Amino acid sequence: MFIRNDWYIAAWASEIGSKPGDKPLGRKILNEDVVLFRDQQGKVAALENRCAHRGVPLSCGEIVEKGIQCGYHGLIFNSTGACVEVPGQTVIPPRSTIRSYPLVEKDQFCWIWMGDPAKADPSKIIDYPYHNDSRNWPHKHDMYPIKCNYMLLIDNLMDLTHLGFVHKKTIGGNARVHVDAKMDTTRKENGLHYVRWMLDCIPPPTYSKSVKFGKERVDRWQEFELFVPGAIVQWSGATDSGTGATEGKRDGGFSLRLFHGITPETDKSCFYFWSAANGYRQDDPAATEQLFDEIAITFKEDWVILEEQQVSLDRYPDRNYVEIAADGARTHANKVIARRLAEEAAESAKKSEPAMA
Amino acid sequence: MFIRNDWYIAAWASEIGSKPGDKPLGRKILNEDVVLFRDQQGKVAALENRCAHRGVPLSCGEIVEKGIQCGYHGLIFNSTGACVEVPGQTVIPPRSTIRSYPLVEKDQFCWIWMGDPAKADPSKIIDYPYHNDSRNWPHKHDMYPIKCNYMLLIDNLMDLTHLGFVHKKTIGGNARVHVDAKMDTTRKENGLHYVRWMLDCIPPPTYSKSVKFGKERVDRWQEFELFVPGAIVQWSGATDSGTGATEGKRDGGFSLRLFHGITPETDKSCFYFWSAANGYRQDDPAATEQLFDEIAITFKEDWVILEEQQVSLDRYPDRNYVEIAADGARTHANKVIARRLAEEAAESAKKSEPAMA
Amino acid sequence: MFIRNDWYIAAWASEIGSKPGDKPLGRKILNEDVVLFRDQQGKVAALENRCAHRGVPLSCGEIVEKGIQCGYHGLIFNSTGACVEVPGQTVIPPRSTIRSYPLVEKDQFCWIWMGDPAKADPSKIIDYPYHNDSRNWPHKHDMYPIKCNYMLLIDNLMDLTHLGFVHKKTIGGNARVHVDAKMDTTRKENGLHYVRWMLDCIPPPTYSKSVKFGKERVDRWQEFELFVPGAIVQWSGATDSGTGATEGKRDGGFSLRLFHGITPETDKSCFYFWSAANGYRQDDPAATEQLFDEIAITFKEDWVILEEQQVSLDRYPDRNYVEIAADGARTHANKVIARRLAEEAAESAKKSEPAMA
Repeated sequence: MFIRNDWYIAAWASEIGSKPGDKPLGRKILNEDVVLFRDQQGKVAALENRCAHRGVPLSCGEIVEKGIQCGYHGLIFNSTGACVEVPGQTVIPPRSTIRSYPLVEKDQFCWIWMGDPAKADPSKIIDYPYHNDSRNWPHKHDMYPIKCNYMLLIDNLMDLTHLGFVHKKTIGGNARVHVDAKMDTTRKENGLHYVRWMLDCIPPPTYSKSVKFGKERVDRWQEFELFVPGAIVQWSGATDSGTGATEGKRDGGFSLRLFHGITPETDKSCFYFWSAANGYRQDDPAATEQLFDEIAITFKEDWVILEEQQVSLDRYPDRNYVEIAADGARTHANKVIARRLAEEAAESAKKSEPAMA
Repeated sequence: MFIRNDWYIAAWASEIGSKPGDKPLGRKILNEDVVLFRDQQGKVAALENRCAHRGVPLSCGEIVEKGIQCGYHGLIFNSTGACVEVPGQTVIPPRSTIRSYPLVEKDQFCWIWMGDPAKADPSKIIDYPYHNDSRNWPHKHDMYPIKCNYMLLIDNLMDLTHLGFVHKKTIGGNARVHVDAKMDTTRKENGLHYVRWMLDCIPPPTYSKSVKFGKERVDRWQEFELFVPGAIVQWSGATDSGTGATEGKRDGGFSLRLFHGITPETDKSCFYFWSAANGYRQDDPAATEQLFDEIAITFKEDWVILEEQQVSLDRYPDRNYVEIAADGARTHANKVIARRLAEEAAESAKKSEPAMA
Repeated sequence: MFIRNDWYIAAWASEIGSKPGDKPLGRKILNEDVVLFRDQQGKVAALENRCAHRGVPLSCGEIVEKGIQCGYHGLIFNSTGACVEVPGQTVIPPRSTIRSYPLVEKDQFCWIWMGDPAKADPSKIIDYPYHNDSRNWPHKHDMYPIKCNYMLLIDNLMDLTHLGFVHKKTIGGNARVHVDAKMDTTRKENGLHYVRWMLDCIPPPTYSKSVKFGKERVDRWQEFELFVPGAIVQWSGATDSGTGATEGKRDGGFSLRLFHGITPETDKSCFYFWSAANGYRQDDPAATEQLFDEIAITFKEDWVILEEQQVSLDRYPDRNYVEIAADGARTHANKVIARRLAEEAAESAKKSEPAMA
């Protein structure tokens, strides 16, 4: 069960071709098969990934001038899903239009709307201007297809005590530091914000590799904001201990911005779209590469444990979790998602009610 | 659901061993597991692929003088399915006979009958004499196991407008030429015959590589005959434009004969037995090799799209096709198969009716 | 359906680590996921392979001083399954204890009890002292995960007529010899003992490679004892023909002891723990290696046929076996297992009955 009336990341903008002859991109999102392409005006479009004629996936075809052409018998569909050409005949058969989905390109993402198209409001898409500001925030991105329910990945990011156990060699370092971190959570209508402080601590390996601190110890912060259903923006960093990070003086040390975009593929798989931007040595492309490589190692460690967790949950479908103190943010996130699902279910039930006599 | 009372190709004759010690061939046909071998007289036989003793596949055993021997405890079955030896005892236990299937070797094929053995009439097997005429029709063959319902492969061969989209680099060439081809279909009781004419056209890459035409343009024909359930014979070629191909003068240019044998393995997989024979440069083995390689590339392109189509049909089990003008031959083929299935179902229902009072 | 109130081999003792930082061993036994490790006193322990907190397999974690630590958020469980540490809090939450299983290390095996722990009596574990007597019985061992129901492997070892068909090149040799072997079976309450004699026969390839016989022909014996549910001890060998093997003079020729430990993993897979000990050339490590290699080839031949058999049984779920003369020991073994299962079912039904009024 997924929240449908909201925006999800369908792809990186760079994944979607546009020249005639390019391959379109097929992807399953919320259990539905869509095909993504650009028309000749450069506008991105998302259609049901199924030719109306013989059911072949349109992602086996290619981009052409008039839209997307099926690779089997050559039918062409435009970006609204209308069939605009059937080779060998001039009449377009009825019932040959296929479903289209609202798709919006913004900040290097393509956001898709899988619910009621009438409700799709692009102004509700969150901003991530750092992707367009490579002078201050040069970045690099990737996508990992993870075989777990998307909630497990959100859960992962809501409890950072795992850093000391899963990511010892990169951003984790000493487990104690993470367990003892001061966590300040602000609950929000559609998500939450938290900031974690690890004061006067030894910086973890990734931080030390990236910048030269003035002192042996640093004040380290992690700011996260969750936007349900699947976006998490993160700003983390560290400066020399006692030089004022807690009062807002956060320049001059290590600083990164991470975007975590989580999109359900099926009930037991999701896509993890992430980017890493370095807020230090911005003129040095090696810094961006190095940060990307460190984060890639880190997220691949999560990838392993998340898939193991999913396998284990499937083995024991009737078992509950045991809550611990570190579960606070996660619990709130889960509640927001549950409330959103309930609201959609209620709305949907209301629609199908008969009018009163 | 498959037509059962008819002949299907089980194997190429060359696939079936005969010497003591040879491995027999296990293959699933119409969802049933059969094992194929030759007895010491060279006669091919097909049995249920399961030893009566402990259920081990007989394809794990080997051919011996008296028949086929299970590789586990050594029971031997002859070509009628009778158990003829149980190591360590002289008595053959009751209920140890396994099912045998009518199997006929002809024209380098082994044809199997999966239905009521009483109805198996070898004279109904179609002729393909070209396999025995290597002077005029040297050939080479192969078998592709394709993960799609066998009907999708028949459909593929009933609408050749796909050549211009799927096989651009070999036998397709320009898509327009295929879409504009003149198609003349003769509906038959158990299939159909069609001939397609592409007059005054540029020959496709495979044709140009194979022979030297006298003119830049050719008259090209494709003759297909479908014999339900799974045999299609094809004669195609091209001669210099305007030199009389339409009136029957078809010598001296490019000419090939293809056999397409399609046998269901399961509901979602089939075997594609095909041979390609060159009707030009018959004394040059390189011509046969070259044609085989071109057709192999071509059919592997179909292989990819057919498996994608099957995956897509499984995703949308409740959706219908949209018919287009090019679907004429396919529609008739589907009707014949549906009628044959209905006839078998009616006959089977009749059999199980009680006698009238 | 498995016998639960009995000991099964969970692992070789050598498979289970003990140092802090070592990975624990995850294994599915009787359809349940367990994790095996040693505590700091060196005692082996078996727990449910699932962290109480978020359901992650504990086999993804590591051994620590206090027990086993989850690799996700760091909870620690001791060898009784009690949670002894939750990072970030001092209170241990209720319901955080996980299931532990009796596990006993003996003769280089770790034996697990999957049934009612109150009934687990270590004195009932069979002895295999040869593993501790490397002077007379040097040995080497392995474990094969076989994709078949464990009963098929027991069946395999109850009918050695298969040696002549499956193992021609190692311990089989001539099929006739095995079929004609004199088989003397003693039925027992919880299994059976049999001895097979092949008198005045040509020794099979493995025997001839291993020792130099004085004569061309030997008297060969195979003694097997089955302890239901999954242990079979074997003593086999051969001495020069007519020199008194049948009267007990069995020294001086070829002699081996094999242990066969069979543990169900799932309904369609099992673990085959086996060791091979050479009772000849005991001072020559090459003899142990050579015997191990010969037996490994042999058991891999069984592995192939057992998996083929399972596939075939799944294809024909409603079909019965046909019994032959060679099935005597197997039939008794099957009866003992069926009786044990019925006894457990009756006992379990009795427990859940209400007390009489």
